[in-house]
Amino acid sequence: MADRFGAATAAATNRLLVQSHSRLAVADAALVRSQIAIAQIPAPTGGESERGAWIAQRFASLGLSDLDTDCAGNVIGRLQGKRPLPPVVVCAHLDTVFPNGTNLSVRRDGPRLLGPGINDNSRGLAVMLAIAEGCDGLALERSIDFVATTGEEGAGDLRGSKHYFASRGAAAHAAVIIDGAGDERIVHRALGSRRFRITFDGPGGHSWAAFGAPNAVHAAAAATTALTAIALPADPKTTLTVARIGGGLSVNSIPGQAWMEIDVRSSSASVLDALARRIVSAVRDATAAENGRRAADTPPLQAQIDTIGDRPCGSIAENHPLVQTAAHVTRLIGRSPELTLASTDANIPISLGIPAVAIGAGGRGGDTHTTSEWYDNTAGPIGAARALTIVATVALS
Amino acid sequence: MADRFGAATAAATNRLLVQSHSRLAVADAALVRSQIAIAQIPAPTGGESERGAWIAQRFASLGLSDLDTDCAGNVIGRLQGKRPLPPVVVCAHLDTVFPNGTNLSVRRDGPRLLGPGINDNSRGLAVMLAIAEGCDGLALERSIDFVATTGEEGAGDLRGSKHYFASRGAAAHAAVIIDGAGDERIVHRALGSRRFRITFDGPGGHSWAAFGAPNAVHAAAAATTALTAIALPADPKTTLTVARIGGGLSVNSIPGQAWMEIDVRSSSASVLDALARRIVSAVRDATAAENGRRAADTPPLQAQIDTIGDRPCGSIAENHPLVQTAAHVTRLIGRSPELTLASTDANIPISLGIPAVAIGAGGRGGDTHTTSEWYDNTAGPIGAARALTIVATVALS
Repeated sequence: MADRFGAATAAATNRLLVQSHSRLAVADAALVRSQIAIAQIPAPTGGESERGAWIAQRFASLGLSDLDTDCAGNVIGRLQGKRPLPPVVVCAHLDTVFPNGTNLSVRRDGPRLLGPGINDNSRGLAVMLAIAEGCDGLALERSIDFVATTGEEGAGDLRGSKHYFASRGAAAHAAVIIDGAGDERIVHRALGSRRFRITFDGPGGHSWAAFGAPNAVHAAAAATTALTAIALPADPKTTLTVARIGGGLSVNSIPGQAWMEIDVRSSSASVLDALARRIVSAVRDATAAENGRRAADTPPLQAQIDTIGDRPCGSIAENHPLVQTAAHVTRLIGRSPELTLASTDANIPISLGIPAVAIGAGGRGGDTHTTSEWYDNTAGPIGAARALTIVATVALS
Repeated sequence: MADRFGAATAAATNRLLVQSHSRLAVADAALVRSQIAIAQIPAPTGGESERGAWIAQRFASLGLSDLDTDCAGNVIGRLQGKRPLPPVVVCAHLDTVFPNGTNLSVRRDGPRLLGPGINDNSRGLAVMLAIAEGCDGLALERSIDFVATTGEEGAGDLRGSKHYFASRGAAAHAAVIIDGAGDERIVHRALGSRRFRITFDGPGGHSWAAFGAPNAVHAAAAATTALTAIALPADPKTTLTVARIGGGLSVNSIPGQAWMEIDVRSSSASVLDALARRIVSAVRDATAAENGRRAADTPPLQAQIDTIGDRPCGSIAENHPLVQTAAHVTRLIGRSPELTLASTDANIPISLGIPAVAIGAGGRGGDTHTTSEWYDNTAGPIGAARALTIVATVALS
């Protein structure tokens, strides 16, 4: 792949950037109107179909081919390249963290647009459409597949990206994920995570008369305490959080039920695997210890471990041509490339060996995942041109 | 006191029992009608006033003097004795565990009456009224103060009994608590309990970006684990239960808040005191340990310990004249005295040095504290006569 990226000359990239910036500056008002329109269509994780249909309509208007909405709800369209090479994939996620019923109206406050999801990821979706429009007529070597993905946020667990790269996207040449505002960050390391829900179930009973029955809260606490004693590596940075706990019905009863939810994160797959094994053994040991203490005539406590999240990790090298191309274009617009780590739709292609980066869609944003989320378009056009130029450069090679 | 109880001869007690049994057998249908009427008046802990007013009306009809409803809601009436001696107190609690809105209708199923609270403590209240009626005219030496108490159940924390024996009942000669059905149990040991609610409060934060902020769930778990490691005495039997736990908002956040509720029980005040101190130190140590692990720039976790229940303990000797009188009368009706331990309104006078026992009001009951609670009146009259005779014997001396 290195040689192919090398074939795109700095001159060609520079020309692409200048052309696309001038076009996007002219089309800027229309792009921001799309961004606002998208933000006002509800798309909670798991309920992205209305927003997806809007994107599908725009894909059709832009003349993309091979239009499809797959069984995960991903909306897909192709810009045909000259040669039958593996395509470049551009993804932007459809879903937001905001539940149905959230007021999604967008308002202006000075240079800022305010509204839930206006930045994450209405900006990414609107710029993905602009890339599809702007790349048309560039006589690209490779096809570009544009994918509006589902289930990127929280409990979605990268559902859309997982499905797409396991099926139609499995043969992709590279992937560029457009996520939120910004024009410096280049995510080339995928922060992985595992999430578990542990449930303890036993007989419970009266706290005096049945004393000696196993206590589900005591077992959950013992498992938690064992997990917090694990020394976590600082490099790669790794986290373990017992994020939620619950159990018990009344202050005068031995709790028969308790549950806990655990989040572990790392960029190292082997560290995540080792922590998952430690969690299993901590839960098993805590359950056995509580059962070992119980009165002889009481039924034992049972524990169950369910995986409720699994985002694979991985990385591509800093000197990978895809990263180098993204960094080069970032410097061309006068910004400093910030090579970083995050959990995005890029986790999936990276974990499958497909080179991928996640980049911003231009402009500035903040208060993401809150109802006071904002977007400032001051540097929007040049940032959008950066994204377009990175994608087109990859597709030219 | 021993000599005074001794003065009531076995012959006098026997005569009392025979007379009261024959009277109560005749009045049995009316007594059970009262029991049913009481059960159908809602009286959740903290909302006993309607049932209390019904009892006050009956106290007035029976001609009791010194009628009062005190500021804790206890309904009080006196049957005047011949001499100005410290009175005997008879208590039956008004409250039930059933919240407002519970269907309280009583139905008959063979020998059983079914209905929430029909046994605990509608039976006790109805028999207390029968004792007030039956003792009238016995020319007792001591006055008997009848008290329908509030807040005996759960979170009521013996509120009525605490108030009464700290004020008007402070000078009582002895107390007999009538609680539920039965004709064998004699509770002469008061099971004490302490209940605590612990809350942990910290900054919380994103489980990746803010990792190092103190975790409230980890601290609650550490405190729980430290408490479960305490070796509890088998004699006196002592229990410690972390009965409820909760904390955390979402699986991808470090929890800023967590809480737990702890129940400890023992008949030894010194054991309870020692456990209360261990709880304070376990919470303090767990909080300090979690704060010690936190990142330098994060605010510390704070812990707060609130006492949400405190039932004092104590006992009177098995050979105390009050216990011996109760046991003697129990044998007179052909039953085997069962000297035992429980948490009742008797906890308060016992803890204050006033001799007290809790006894059943006759008949059989079960499924107490459930909506399928039942009462069987087959042996009801003789059990009611037992209770009356125990009270009258004490008041005769």
